[in-house]
Amino acid sequence: MRTRAAVAVAAGKPLEIMEVNLDAPKWGEVLVEIKATGICHTDEFTLSGADPEGLFPAILGHEGAGVVIECGPGVTTLKPGDHVIPLYTPECRQCPSCLSQKTNLCTAIRSTQGQGLMPDGTTRFSMLDGTPIYHYMGCSTFANHTVMPEIALAKVRPDAPFDKICYIGCGVTTGIGAVINTAKVEIGAKAVVFGLGGIGLNVIQGLKMAGADMIIGVDLNNDKKEWGEKFGMTHFINPKEVEGSVVQAIVNLTKTEADQIGGADYSFDCTGNVKVMRDALECTHRGWGVSVVIGVAPAGAEISTRPFQLVTGRVWKGTAFGGARGRTDVPKIVDWYMDGKVEIDSMITHTMPLERINEAFDLMHKGESIRSVVIY
Amino acid sequence: MRTRAAVAVAAGKPLEIMEVNLDAPKWGEVLVEIKATGICHTDEFTLSGADPEGLFPAILGHEGAGVVIECGPGVTTLKPGDHVIPLYTPECRQCPSCLSQKTNLCTAIRSTQGQGLMPDGTTRFSMLDGTPIYHYMGCSTFANHTVMPEIALAKVRPDAPFDKICYIGCGVTTGIGAVINTAKVEIGAKAVVFGLGGIGLNVIQGLKMAGADMIIGVDLNNDKKEWGEKFGMTHFINPKEVEGSVVQAIVNLTKTEADQIGGADYSFDCTGNVKVMRDALECTHRGWGVSVVIGVAPAGAEISTRPFQLVTGRVWKGTAFGGARGRTDVPKIVDWYMDGKVEIDSMITHTMPLERINEAFDLMHKGESIRSVVIY
Repeated sequence: MRTRAAVAVAAGKPLEIMEVNLDAPKWGEVLVEIKATGICHTDEFTLSGADPEGLFPAILGHEGAGVVIECGPGVTTLKPGDHVIPLYTPECRQCPSCLSQKTNLCTAIRSTQGQGLMPDGTTRFSMLDGTPIYHYMGCSTFANHTVMPEIALAKVRPDAPFDKICYIGCGVTTGIGAVINTAKVEIGAKAVVFGLGGIGLNVIQGLKMAGADMIIGVDLNNDKKEWGEKFGMTHFINPKEVEGSVVQAIVNLTKTEADQIGGADYSFDCTGNVKVMRDALECTHRGWGVSVVIGVAPAGAEISTRPFQLVTGRVWKGTAFGGARGRTDVPKIVDWYMDGKVEIDSMITHTMPLERINEAFDLMHKGESIRSVVIY
Repeated sequence: MRTRAAVAVAAGKPLEIMEVNLDAPKWGEVLVEIKATGICHTDEFTLSGADPEGLFPAILGHEGAGVVIECGPGVTTLKPGDHVIPLYTPECRQCPSCLSQKTNLCTAIRSTQGQGLMPDGTTRFSMLDGTPIYHYMGCSTFANHTVMPEIALAKVRPDAPFDKICYIGCGVTTGIGAVINTAKVEIGAKAVVFGLGGIGLNVIQGLKMAGADMIIGVDLNNDKKEWGEKFGMTHFINPKEVEGSVVQAIVNLTKTEADQIGGADYSFDCTGNVKVMRDALECTHRGWGVSVVIGVAPAGAEISTRPFQLVTGRVWKGTAFGGARGRTDVPKIVDWYMDGKVEIDSMITHTMPLERINEAFDLMHKGESIRSVVIY
């Protein structure tokens, strides 16, 4: 069949809207009509050329929602008409990683996915001249139709709006999941969130859900204060406006009469900046502070600290897709959204048709959007 | 009173055996007759001058065992004749850290201890000419008698031999505790220990107690292979003798037919070398590997890695005194030793009277001892 897609033809170039060929789903695969897709910093990272593993031409996009059109042979858990959210982190429930019950990082199709291919080592997309087009993060939601493995699709309730729940395919789940799956924040905790973009705001709403007492947002842009407060932030720090270091400012803010040491119980880096990651670790409490890296750093960048920070009880960890097992956890988050427990609508600041997708990247660069969504 | 001590008169100089003054215990303090003391790398670190917080003159030593001689006013949990192990990490059970139930790093007397003083801000030791002598890690077990806060003494059973259980005051508890308190290793795990000295061997015996399937020891010295095996090591790697990196060697060794990713479930750095700490993190398994820093790094040294290591599920943490709450956990480890669950005797390779304590440092420098113990 043919479908319409925004194709990343080369690094650093705008996406090009074109008709492309899409082969039928093979064994274990599913044809999905994408109804809506968010545009995420990771798409921008790859499109810009900064991603050393970026492949071109490719159809980017990994934050979508849609409907099953056709199932390939061997597919048993989905049928045409099912509403689904694509998963860039699949959940096969069979591999050593899934069976470990210690990680969400399913490895069933990791190697082919990393090469922009379906599990059989080929692509389903091609240019009209036959040139293969790479898949992206196993999803390619910047096409109106895509083919994905069954294990990379979360079946969700049919009454949830595609143009909102697409955001659960990445940003919402990553932010909330980092709090509840990776950090396992408990009621009464003091937490800091560095970077109040699309991920950071979802970390904040996750912290509010988890019952944190103090939710400190850190951003260089004062306009983010109002955004943070809308989702539950209790304190805001602009590092440019504090005397001394942001670490010291956080330590001071979290001190109490009973606890003169101070420091956050949990911190989250949503910036991708390795210097900020260090601050995020070092502002946590001696003895038990946990710092979670969420942001994606530039290629080759390294984090550093004195080992004394760890020996005195701080823990440095990270999260991918918020530690969520996609087929199990994503439908729950959709339920939470429908039940009003999770807020999404106000974060989707811009919507547009596929033809105007490049505007979404412009809005991101200018810092004017929290999330842009393309509606097919 | 007067007592005999090995005094560190200045950085880099041998200890000097001399008579010193020792004031009576003040409120909440206890006079202890030290019966035996181990000589640990941390003593050497300070004596050498490498410790930026080192103070002189001081009475070093922090790995002892002895008997209560006299209790100051306000002491309620100890009485003359009790057998005790000094704790450089006290356990007050009252401070925010103790009450958090998340850390063993009691902060009740942290600031004065770090300054070489008793909690009231003075020293109990002085030269015969009146010059104050600093305490060390709150213990100063290189004196035949010492004064310590009640909260820094673990009461232990009276039938345990001082010249063996002194080692529980640091090395044994640090190594075993890192496994059971900090890493919480589970039965069947695969673990790697970097550095097979006095701490590393105790990590190995902790791993054996915890039921680890694979206990890989890494050391540059092949003589350590036999030592490791004696305590439960199942595999030995000499980084100088592997092709490629030690990380790759460990990944290969831990791969199975079912799990082609490979990597250790847990790793422990017992070297204090920041490059080794990085290897220790990076050789752990994607998705769930936990690496624990135990070794003390040189002043100013920093650990580094790509944040991708954390985002893909590895956790970097550290431990001090094996995460043990001294008054609660140390008596249990003494019981384990007396029950034959923990091996100590063979690790104490050398014993000597106080007069020959400088020989213990020479043996350490030459790598000829696992542990030297001074018997008073």
